[in-house]
Amino acid sequence: MSKTYRLVISCPDRVGIVAAVSQYLNERNGSIVEANHHTGPEQKWFFMRHVIDAESMTVDLETFRAEFAKIAAEFDMDWFINSSEDKPKVMLMATKESHCLNDLLHRWHTGELQCDIVGVIANHEDLRSMVEWYKIPYHCINVPKEDKLPAFQAIETAIDESGADTIVLARYMQIFPEYLCEKYRFRVINIHHSFLPSFIGAKPYHQAAVRGVKLIGATCHYVTADLDAGPIIEQDVIRVRHSHSATDMVRLGKDIEKLVLSRGLSYHIEDRVLVHGNKTVVFAQ
Amino acid sequence: MSKTYRLVISCPDRVGIVAAVSQYLNERNGSIVEANHHTGPEQKWFFMRHVIDAESMTVDLETFRAEFAKIAAEFDMDWFINSSEDKPKVMLMATKESHCLNDLLHRWHTGELQCDIVGVIANHEDLRSMVEWYKIPYHCINVPKEDKLPAFQAIETAIDESGADTIVLARYMQIFPEYLCEKYRFRVINIHHSFLPSFIGAKPYHQAAVRGVKLIGATCHYVTADLDAGPIIEQDVIRVRHSHSATDMVRLGKDIEKLVLSRGLSYHIEDRVLVHGNKTVVFAQ
Amino acid sequence: MSKTYRLVISCPDRVGIVAAVSQYLNERNGSIVEANHHTGPEQKWFFMRHVIDAESMTVDLETFRAEFAKIAAEFDMDWFINSSEDKPKVMLMATKESHCLNDLLHRWHTGELQCDIVGVIANHEDLRSMVEWYKIPYHCINVPKEDKLPAFQAIETAIDESGADTIVLARYMQIFPEYLCEKYRFRVINIHHSFLPSFIGAKPYHQAAVRGVKLIGATCHYVTADLDAGPIIEQDVIRVRHSHSATDMVRLGKDIEKLVLSRGLSYHIEDRVLVHGNKTVVFAQ
Amino acid sequence: MSKTYRLVISCPDRVGIVAAVSQYLNERNGSIVEANHHTGPEQKWFFMRHVIDAESMTVDLETFRAEFAKIAAEFDMDWFINSSEDKPKVMLMATKESHCLNDLLHRWHTGELQCDIVGVIANHEDLRSMVEWYKIPYHCINVPKEDKLPAFQAIETAIDESGADTIVLARYMQIFPEYLCEKYRFRVINIHHSFLPSFIGAKPYHQAAVRGVKLIGATCHYVTADLDAGPIIEQDVIRVRHSHSATDMVRLGKDIEKLVLSRGLSYHIEDRVLVHGNKTVVFAQ
Repeated sequence: MSKTYRLVISCPDRVGIVAAVSQYLNERNGSIVEANHHTGPEQKWFFMRHVIDAESMTVDLETFRAEFAKIAAEFDMDWFINSSEDKPKVMLMATKESHCLNDLLHRWHTGELQCDIVGVIANHEDLRSMVEWYKIPYHCINVPKEDKLPAFQAIETAIDESGADTIVLARYMQIFPEYLCEKYRFRVINIHHSFLPSFIGAKPYHQAAVRGVKLIGATCHYVTADLDAGPIIEQDVIRVRHSHSATDMVRLGKDIEKLVLSRGLSYHIEDRVLVHGNKTVVFAQ
Repeated sequence: MSKTYRLVISCPDRVGIVAAVSQYLNERNGSIVEANHHTGPEQKWFFMRHVIDAESMTVDLETFRAEFAKIAAEFDMDWFINSSEDKPKVMLMATKESHCLNDLLHRWHTGELQCDIVGVIANHEDLRSMVEWYKIPYHCINVPKEDKLPAFQAIETAIDESGADTIVLARYMQIFPEYLCEKYRFRVINIHHSFLPSFIGAKPYHQAAVRGVKLIGATCHYVTADLDAGPIIEQDVIRVRHSHSATDMVRLGKDIEKLVLSRGLSYHIEDRVLVHGNKTVVFAQ
Repeated sequence: MSKTYRLVISCPDRVGIVAAVSQYLNERNGSIVEANHHTGPEQKWFFMRHVIDAESMTVDLETFRAEFAKIAAEFDMDWFINSSEDKPKVMLMATKESHCLNDLLHRWHTGELQCDIVGVIANHEDLRSMVEWYKIPYHCINVPKEDKLPAFQAIETAIDESGADTIVLARYMQIFPEYLCEKYRFRVINIHHSFLPSFIGAKPYHQAAVRGVKLIGATCHYVTADLDAGPIIEQDVIRVRHSHSATDMVRLGKDIEKLVLSRGLSYHIEDRVLVHGNKTVVFAQ
Repeated sequence: MSKTYRLVISCPDRVGIVAAVSQYLNERNGSIVEANHHTGPEQKWFFMRHVIDAESMTVDLETFRAEFAKIAAEFDMDWFINSSEDKPKVMLMATKESHCLNDLLHRWHTGELQCDIVGVIANHEDLRSMVEWYKIPYHCINVPKEDKLPAFQAIETAIDESGADTIVLARYMQIFPEYLCEKYRFRVINIHHSFLPSFIGAKPYHQAAVRGVKLIGATCHYVTADLDAGPIIEQDVIRVRHSHSATDMVRLGKDIEKLVLSRGLSYHIEDRVLVHGNKTVVFAQ
């Protein structure tokens, strides 16, 4: 894959945005590889993502940013441009369940996930050997029931020292404290093992078994201070029958969790997700 | 299709049930066309459905019922046997939305639904012409906000005079009164336009749009006194994107509502649904 | 829904297309409601669809067409612009099976399909009463085995006199002659009752039952002279089990046929389908 | 999970089979945990699978087999009974692609796959380290283009020495020779990366991209001498768009391949798959 730039913009909707952006890209000879637009009619808000062939551009990123700032100011844009060569740094967090972790590590190892995995933080030792096979640092930080704050401070330090810009709760069975949700706003991704907003909180498969639903699901969302209520990135479901116990649902649900989390994370690290209010615009391929 | 009997049984689980039933069927030369068993390990309850080639049996239904009563008593069975020639009688109820009604009427007309449709009750006149094209009686019973009881008494009379054993709320926009839920227990089927237990109550698609979910769904369930909380028969979902407004979801959701309601109703009228507690065993084909 | 224009473009890919188009739209104050782009890297071809709020434009369609012709010439564009008020005219064709026809007619009747249905052509009388309930002209044109040409000439006349620009083979059980495929190139839409390219030709469900597949499907495609080999617009599948006979598949498949055909037709009449080579670009919502 | 027996039977259909089997189970006090029946009306063939709580039985497996042989003879049964404690022995085969292998090894490692994995045979060294992390023997057997027979003889030896009863071609990019297909009849499972019978043979995703299909799929099937034409165990699909190149399809398809192969293998090792003619009866949970 050749080098590309990703230009992501959101701003109040009005006539002329696309013209201004595309005219600037044209002046700098930018060849557009992928383009997505969305206008939210209710919010009167405009969202845009371009992938540009870096080779085609007659300016470098620094110049681009300086020049584009004028257009951005004119249209009140929330915006950034990234190079595909500056890969996002991702910290994974887990407890004992290995399915999501194994899935993400394997996708990363085979080049499917366009990111660097800078470490795994877990509150148990169980997954160390698996992680270390991938030559990834493993931080075991126990989170004692009676006093969790020091543990989360250690976690914060580990995250910050790693330079991670994205944190993935890959079935991490601890509630992320509010101050970290704020600090890493829209950078912490969780996989919840239900089709939200059904079955918020603990043991969603058992809740599903009790309610007798005919499909179970998983939800990938940004973590906010409200439990399981942050902006949803991706969801999917799988069919279950009366013959499936809660234990069966736990097993079947793993496949959906893996798919939903890996898709959600891919969207995030490829800058395909734009948050607006408590909802996401997802420019999937 | 040749004539069949449907023998449906549920009872406390123990060794010997299948042996007793199959031995009796064997003595009466019953050729089994379809057989389903389920043991709920938590409830220690046993569920069974047989479809028997009527021609093969050496006894008629009356004799069968008399003879089988002994086995049923021994195992504490909740049971019945039906002939495929005694079609269930179904009363449909609707308001103004035609998609579910049109779908069910067309399926019935082309022989796909194994039932008699004995009438349509609606609280508006809008759907009369469509229903009467099918030569089905149309009862328009207005349900005034200020005093609904007389209307529901008229509805009850219409149902009872029609001989209906199943009532289908095909997007009927009135809450069924508790006393009718009791009277027609596990005989009233509703289609709710969300993936329950998400978005109970009014305007579920608007709730879904506000929450920003990535899939919307529909749920076919038995109506009980608890709003949208009865035993679930069938559910399904369809993918939505940020580009879909609540209005788009209403439109897209119709296809899922039709599919889920028609499947749920088919299961019900083919005696494939066994209710236990607040859950269903569904012996789908 | 307010009035919109749909501008659809395909041309060889190069830098500057989007800039030129969006600058022109901007000069004419066009407010973009929906925008889709696609660059096919292999074909080096560019595809674009804009929906523009008609009220916002400072020029009418005639002026637009005259002015835009210069840009179009510069970039070698294959292009058109439509008003949402000029609805496509659709001729439906069927035999005896009613499910697709009933589905499309109901969607049209309730305003879901943005087109005028100008008639139904069938080679049997069976569906006349259903069609006439919708007050749509019904043309029964028998197609005798021994000499089909005069029948297809009568069909051609009926199509041309109706002014139809789109022809839908809604389970029309006759092979469309090559010269009509050519005359109505990429305007004749068929629903094939298999997941193409599996099970081309006659009795696909029986072929599927013999092969023992675990999913059956349907394909909506443009009709070309090659049987079931034209550009695919939409496909979907449904799960089947060993307990489903070919007859069951015929029944289950109907639901997929209806969904796939109605989606494919919607895409077509909303100018969301761009054909290139033997493939389609589908700008779904 | 407590110990269970699996009794699997197929035979010509006639009245009395279920009665005979269930009466015998009853006499030996067998508590039935799961029961599935199927009668193929066309083939007039009967299929049955029972899971029996081993603790409840008053006889051991040896006695069961001796006693049941009489019933089996009477009804011309093809049958066997297994203990859940005698796990199937599975040999995996791969080339360089790791996604299916990693998926199966992880499922096995976490106890999801009820089998012993006795080794991995590959024709390259690439996957050795991954396999050896799981402490599983890795046999690298190169298959030279010019003379494959000695390689397949070495493979045969490795399989036979391992005691494997099931061989899984987990994206093994070599055609299995006919004599081994015969020797291990209905014991060799392949994952083909298309929705068969579409795109038989090499590079199915590229074939799919050329044809412009809107869904791609994968098929798990028993290997027979006819390429990609053996009995199908499981299939599934995933949606693709015009924006997906053949390379994207390769990537997206991996998720479906993993799911379909792991489900198919689970069905096989849990004795849920009964082959009849070129089709399977799959008694999924």
